[in-house]
Amino acid sequence: MNFPSKLIEDAVTAFSQLPGVGKKTALRLVLHMLQEPVEISEQFADAIVDMRKKIKFCAHCHNVSDDTICSICSGSGRDKTTVCVVESIRDIMAIENTNQYKGLYHVLGGVISPIEGVSPKDLNIDTFIQRIPKEGIKEIIMALSPTIEGDTTIFYLSRQLKDQDVKITTLARGISFGGELEYADEMTLGRSIMTRRLYDNDINKSQG
Amino acid sequence: MNFPSKLIEDAVTAFSQLPGVGKKTALRLVLHMLQEPVEISEQFADAIVDMRKKIKFCAHCHNVSDDTICSICSGSGRDKTTVCVVESIRDIMAIENTNQYKGLYHVLGGVISPIEGVSPKDLNIDTFIQRIPKEGIKEIIMALSPTIEGDTTIFYLSRQLKDQDVKITTLARGISFGGELEYADEMTLGRSIMTRRLYDNDINKSQG
Repeated sequence: MNFPSKLIEDAVTAFSQLPGVGKKTALRLVLHMLQEPVEISEQFADAIVDMRKKIKFCAHCHNVSDDTICSICSGSGRDKTTVCVVESIRDIMAIENTNQYKGLYHVLGGVISPIEGVSPKDLNIDTFIQRIPKEGIKEIIMALSPTIEGDTTIFYLSRQLKDQDVKITTLARGISFGGELEYADEMTLGRSIMTRRLYDNDINKSQG
Repeated sequence: MNFPSKLIEDAVTAFSQLPGVGKKTALRLVLHMLQEPVEISEQFADAIVDMRKKIKFCAHCHNVSDDTICSICSGSGRDKTTVCVVESIRDIMAIENTNQYKGLYHVLGGVISPIEGVSPKDLNIDTFIQRIPKEGIKEIIMALSPTIEGDTTIFYLSRQLKDQDVKITTLARGISFGGELEYADEMTLGRSIMTRRLYDNDINKSQG
């Protein structure tokens, strides 16, 4: 692609370094910016640099935060004896949006993956192990991806925690709500029969 | 969507004001920025603000430019008696990428559209009419969209130019190269039979 201006080319290159943005999309975004007043570009740039420079990570759970301690860790209505272990900040947002969980979180920053060169010391595991006795945590919910790496990480964490008096739980696996049986993969369907549970009308009501 | 931080929310809002970027995509871009060093965000912001502040529009053709006159208008190898009239800068880039045209351009900045409130005075028409005698233009190629608004604009321009000794041409309309006859719409197919041309092996060779 030939550009009529070096400035345009640089801006297109900047946009196209974002994930999922190709050169054509980048050009569309740049030409959109050109049509808007200068102030819009400045506000856009400021919002991003401000965010990147001023953002803090919570000293307890590593969630993003405007302060040293995030709003979840410092929140009054939370159950401070339960911690949900997640890979990333996005998982916290997803779980918070369900409005079903009122405990605390801990962001690992990834999962153990020898193939990608991620070892336990690259993750926020030490701070996690220290939290458990210090904060009197009673239950740990492992909300990691259902992959080999996720399972490896859960196994590693459970070994690290074996001397501590704490209940370790994982998310329920099974057929999605609204999912059709015939389209569920064999492993999910097979496991969900093996791990079947007593019918409980109250839970079905609160979920549905 | 609930955000764990006002800074994140502001950055997501900034990204989601771009065309074709929703809240979920914006969040993905913001979290990507968070994982990169601060310098990357600064370079990104600088490229955009620099582009928006320093970009100039060519005094002759209204193309974007790093200088007062764009590289096409000041280029040595161009046919300066032919002007191609286009709606936007993107059309110039598309035509330039074909490497088939060596004349000049004129960017109107849109087409006449009473429905969207675009009248001739909102477009770069006055500067265009003045260019024709001043620069000794001999041919004007109307490369506007094949819509009612495009045709209206071509008609308006041709009326404004009726006292000037200049040839007005439009882009050839017809079946696309590589397009199959059976999938062409009736109007295009019908018109392309009516406006059929003598077989010319040389042109077919240079296009194919």
